[in-house]
Amino acid sequence: MPQPVTMSDVARAAGVSVTTVSYVLSGKRPVAPHTRRAVEKAVADLGFTLNTVARNLRTGRSTIVALVVPDLANPFYAQLARGLQESLRGPGYHLVVGSSLAQRDEERAFLEEAVEQRMAGVVITPFRIGPDDLGPLADAGIPVVVSADVRFGDVDHVAPDSAAAFRDALAHVTAAGRRRVGMIAGPRDVTGGDPRLDVLRAEAGRFGLTLADPYVVPGEHTREAGAAAFEALMGLPKPPDAVFCVNDVTAVGALEKAEELGVDVPGDVALTGHDDIEFASLVRPRLSTVRYPAIEVGRSCARLLLSRLDGRSAARTVRVATTWVPRASA
Amino acid sequence: MPQPVTMSDVARAAGVSVTTVSYVLSGKRPVAPHTRRAVEKAVADLGFTLNTVARNLRTGRSTIVALVVPDLANPFYAQLARGLQESLRGPGYHLVVGSSLAQRDEERAFLEEAVEQRMAGVVITPFRIGPDDLGPLADAGIPVVVSADVRFGDVDHVAPDSAAAFRDALAHVTAAGRRRVGMIAGPRDVTGGDPRLDVLRAEAGRFGLTLADPYVVPGEHTREAGAAAFEALMGLPKPPDAVFCVNDVTAVGALEKAEELGVDVPGDVALTGHDDIEFASLVRPRLSTVRYPAIEVGRSCARLLLSRLDGRSAARTVRVATTWVPRASA
Repeated sequence: MPQPVTMSDVARAAGVSVTTVSYVLSGKRPVAPHTRRAVEKAVADLGFTLNTVARNLRTGRSTIVALVVPDLANPFYAQLARGLQESLRGPGYHLVVGSSLAQRDEERAFLEEAVEQRMAGVVITPFRIGPDDLGPLADAGIPVVVSADVRFGDVDHVAPDSAAAFRDALAHVTAAGRRRVGMIAGPRDVTGGDPRLDVLRAEAGRFGLTLADPYVVPGEHTREAGAAAFEALMGLPKPPDAVFCVNDVTAVGALEKAEELGVDVPGDVALTGHDDIEFASLVRPRLSTVRYPAIEVGRSCARLLLSRLDGRSAARTVRVATTWVPRASA
Repeated sequence: MPQPVTMSDVARAAGVSVTTVSYVLSGKRPVAPHTRRAVEKAVADLGFTLNTVARNLRTGRSTIVALVVPDLANPFYAQLARGLQESLRGPGYHLVVGSSLAQRDEERAFLEEAVEQRMAGVVITPFRIGPDDLGPLADAGIPVVVSADVRFGDVDHVAPDSAAAFRDALAHVTAAGRRRVGMIAGPRDVTGGDPRLDVLRAEAGRFGLTLADPYVVPGEHTREAGAAAFEALMGLPKPPDAVFCVNDVTAVGALEKAEELGVDVPGDVALTGHDDIEFASLVRPRLSTVRYPAIEVGRSCARLLLSRLDGRSAARTVRVATTWVPRASA
């Protein structure tokens, strides 16, 4: 299927920047006559049709899409941003990224800015806000996509489908005779709870295993929290022999702590991450993990957002498949 | 020295969000009377004085500061963003981050958006734009800080002071008898050239060493480019026995390629990075590197920007000290 003609194509054919193309289309700024003619010729030659961006330019709406994530230092979000940005570029949108530090005030502040700046759209991985906080965006006609395990009412939604990958991972560790499963989980006070824990617990049940306190240690999604949680698990009278982590960043923290404590991974404990960030294969032992393809997640968010921006209907929930990636740590 | 009272302090004392404080101060949105009184009391109690943010709120200027970096997937920039964001929060600014993918069109588009959105300020690590591209921001009265080795005319500037750290690194590798120095450098077509290469070359000269083609391999600042450059260096008739990398991300790519090629690091080649991103100590062998403290770089950018926003004078170039961090790879 041929790709639709984009402003980038027009810019390339006319030998000008995308911004110049947008000025010609919007009439918002003066453009030199010969440049304008080059753009108009490219538009005609390529059969480019005005899309939502061009309309928005004329109506004064920004071409900025905001991505709000809890932690820019987590490479998962950097890759998600890349997938999103690449998909938005063709249609003429620019992506800006804000880090909420997983704090409710910051999350709300970004949403308020999006309304005040009349941004084109918002993609958010929410931590402490609730569905009600998205109301002002709906009122302002700004489409929102939530990228998170948890659902936000009927807001467009991209989430991992982790059950099958967790099942593969559990089959792997139980085949090695491991029976005491623990989890380094997310925070307890997050809106919607911790669906990733719920899915893992349900899958563990199929293997006749329970996953309960004190074998579930909550914490932030950081390396430091992962290290602290791992230490707590190893301090139990009967420490777990298989630990699942809510993401790779916490798993890396756990690996470092294991080395410090002299705990052998995977000899004493099998350790599994979630995401497959690029560094998962660079640490030692190489991290076994559940691959949740961040770039594809970003692209899925873009598809949902663009379909709203273009007034097209589309599936409103996308489940992105995950895969169990066995390496050395489990 | 006591810290100045910030909007965050007022918000904490009044038990409300920073956003609510800003609404009270700006009068931009209605606030419930009892909330307004609580904020006004906190303002009086703490001796808070209206600063530029409050003035900007009333004049309609955004509280958004944009950070434009070449690659969000490089953890150095995520940390820089964190340092910047933390310093800007107190005074009431929000940070958004854009990834230019090191492309001139994208860099220009972000700058144009900053002007159109009347953003409060811009911090940029420029790759392909030149000083002239910053003209529209100056015209619009939007302060800019450049975070890069290269200077952009008289624009406020934060840069590493790498000479002493390179000298320490060179002393280390030459003491081990190494004499053939190579560099995995940045791109050749970047505005202002490659000052990091120039500094390393000058320091190598002090040790009677030359650093010249074909021992200098240019490329993008990516893991893939690092791997390709390392392979090119190892293909030389007399490969280098000490390789310096323009950043840690390229060094990690080089390490992976070394493992693939069966080249022993540091046995055959000593390998040195630049930045000390958090993963430098997680790869194996652990990466020796020049530590350029990203959070401190971000804070320095914030200080320069805030002094412009407050109309205060300040040093306009900040050199951030670097340190040689020997680990296992060199």
